[in-house]
Amino acid sequence: MNTYKIALLAGDGIGPEVMKQAVKVLKAVEARNPEVAFELNEALFGAVAYFETGKSFPAETIAICDEADAILKGTIGLNHEDSKKIPVDEQPERGALLPLRRRYNTYANFRPVYLPQELAHFSPLKPEVIGEGIDLMIIRELVGGLYFGEKEVGKDDNGKRYVREVLEYDEDQIRDILKVGFETAQRRKKVLHNIHKSNVLKSSVLWNEILEEVAVDYPDVEVKHILVDAAATYLCLNPGQFDVMVMENMFGDILSDQGGGILGSLGLMPSACVGPEKSYYEPSHGSAPDIAGKNIANPYSMIGSVALMLEMSFGMEQEAKNLWHAMKSVFANGYGTPDLAKGEDAKLIDTDAFGDMVVDEL
Amino acid sequence: MNTYKIALLAGDGIGPEVMKQAVKVLKAVEARNPEVAFELNEALFGAVAYFETGKSFPAETIAICDEADAILKGTIGLNHEDSKKIPVDEQPERGALLPLRRRYNTYANFRPVYLPQELAHFSPLKPEVIGEGIDLMIIRELVGGLYFGEKEVGKDDNGKRYVREVLEYDEDQIRDILKVGFETAQRRKKVLHNIHKSNVLKSSVLWNEILEEVAVDYPDVEVKHILVDAAATYLCLNPGQFDVMVMENMFGDILSDQGGGILGSLGLMPSACVGPEKSYYEPSHGSAPDIAGKNIANPYSMIGSVALMLEMSFGMEQEAKNLWHAMKSVFANGYGTPDLAKGEDAKLIDTDAFGDMVVDEL
Ligand SMILES: CC(C)[C@H](C(=O)O)[C@@H](O)C(=O)O
Ligand SMILES: CC(C)[C@H](C(=O)O)[C@@H](O)C(=O)O
Repeated sequence: MNTYKIALLAGDGIGPEVMKQAVKVLKAVEARNPEVAFELNEALFGAVAYFETGKSFPAETIAICDEADAILKGTIGLNHEDSKKIPVDEQPERGALLPLRRRYNTYANFRPVYLPQELAHFSPLKPEVIGEGIDLMIIRELVGGLYFGEKEVGKDDNGKRYVREVLEYDEDQIRDILKVGFETAQRRKKVLHNIHKSNVLKSSVLWNEILEEVAVDYPDVEVKHILVDAAATYLCLNPGQFDVMVMENMFGDILSDQGGGILGSLGLMPSACVGPEKSYYEPSHGSAPDIAGKNIANPYSMIGSVALMLEMSFGMEQEAKNLWHAMKSVFANGYGTPDLAKGEDAKLIDTDAFGDMVVDEL
Repeated sequence: MNTYKIALLAGDGIGPEVMKQAVKVLKAVEARNPEVAFELNEALFGAVAYFETGKSFPAETIAICDEADAILKGTIGLNHEDSKKIPVDEQPERGALLPLRRRYNTYANFRPVYLPQELAHFSPLKPEVIGEGIDLMIIRELVGGLYFGEKEVGKDDNGKRYVREVLEYDEDQIRDILKVGFETAQRRKKVLHNIHKSNVLKSSVLWNEILEEVAVDYPDVEVKHILVDAAATYLCLNPGQFDVMVMENMFGDILSDQGGGILGSLGLMPSACVGPEKSYYEPSHGSAPDIAGKNIANPYSMIGSVALMLEMSFGMEQEAKNLWHAMKSVFANGYGTPDLAKGEDAKLIDTDAFGDMVVDEL
């Protein structure tokens, strides 16, 4: 019997309702695999934790995460106005999410941007731009750069306010994420797109220097260099030219959300945040406070994150495949959550219904 | 008689061939306006200047720019491999372009993302996503942030290489660009999208604080806040929701190139870089070394930059309108440069032909 402890951090906004679907799915997987048991431990995380305990990543939650074999996170964050009710450094992103990433050093963020041809109609791009579908893997460095550098806010001698924040990387951090890029490229099409801004940023100059060193160990992988701004252009114009794309933290934040854009919804963006000892899994989208509690959020990103967890943390590759297949089938049968279902022939389903249908397909 | 001195910095790659079209157009405008004379002064800039003089922004070029009423810049930069032939700090971006921006403090970069309905077929987006066409204005802060902050490259005590670069802004810089945003919104639809990342970056926290102060003076403008990553999603999913978007330097670099992506080509992206005393004008795209010298580059961005110069530096609004109209007509007549003309019924034209046709339309 394999028992896996999973910390469940439902979070804010639509987090709890999409997490509910993830739990359904985990129970269904458990039911089909008599030799596997999931121990699910819920914990407070995000704004909800702050309002209840005064901390957005409370000690009790930390303990549950420390104990867990893997962490499944929903979504966190409040809308622009409500955010102001929480002191800046306890706001859920700074107070919970970044500390979670730092604590488990989840430096390798995998963000598949995937839309098989059957679902190509969800994309805002023309069919001739998409061709056979979209299938690329964004690999984002997740624990360095501007997000984690020193920050200074102050006033100069004339009382003028200023802010300084540091983008920093050392060679080990860069090497580690580039290796992940090369290894992923080896498992896929053996082409690695290196996203950088070396014509302006010295961090990109060092990045590219390390890349040349690392590349020596992966002679079978072809490296293609592209500036981050050009990458943003070509993700729209011709996403099929990319397969594996590796980049630093902030670039990855922006380009992966653009990835959600070309798919047709951030609701189609699961992700894995992998550390040396522990990994956590999360939808790439936000907490969507405006639609929270309405049972209309798309739980695909959340359930897809479960699939990534099954595969990457528990080695349950076949179950992960089944899950992707089940989700794809629901959509391929013409159903769609409100973010996706547009036009007259759309068969609209809600959050719960999608979860139920996925379980039925399994 | 009004004589305007214009510094012409053709630059690298496709720069000279698109600049040639700009000159044609300027001569045509001059011919139509007996009371206006353009004094055109060519100067070396970019890699070409480096190879000829050892400096990518040589003293003679600086003198010509200092004398000019406005500066028209082509494109600069070499491909990834060739760049290595120039020391990092003389590479054309660091050695010429950033110093040009700094010297004339061209803090306000206007990047229209514009595609009238007649040209909507150029876009990779579906007609139903585009609707009536695309018409938004990206306003990018151009002389602050990561681009201009202190940079430190070194080794720590264990010999490990690291890099640190600083993103910095003070309240005056932020206020100045936000004012430009509000004023532009006032002249358009009175809605300003504020692009930020205040859930992670302290620079965005200060930015948003200043924004609340500035907003008081523009009660007729509605402010909408959107995180930079979400903006990247929605520029693909629904560009029509935006009108004027204001943002810091790096965000503007990435999102404006994404703008070129949704139009169908960076060849459709002119821009104005406005300073308190002097402004310069440039296509937003790069020097495209792979197609340089082939007479196939699209000169729309370059000629559009001339139109922006006529309007913003010389107050020749009607001539600017004529120019936009002439360019639109060429495309609306079914012609297209190779970046745009796809499909069977495309009437392919080259760089020179586009320039000639625009002059004929005028
Ligand atoms: C919520 C926010 C801090 C986070 C990030 O910027 O990393 C999110 O946008 C993401 O992409 O995971
Ligand atoms: C060439 C480069 C330095 C420049 C920038 O990043 O500003 C370009 O990409 C642009 O957008 O004007």
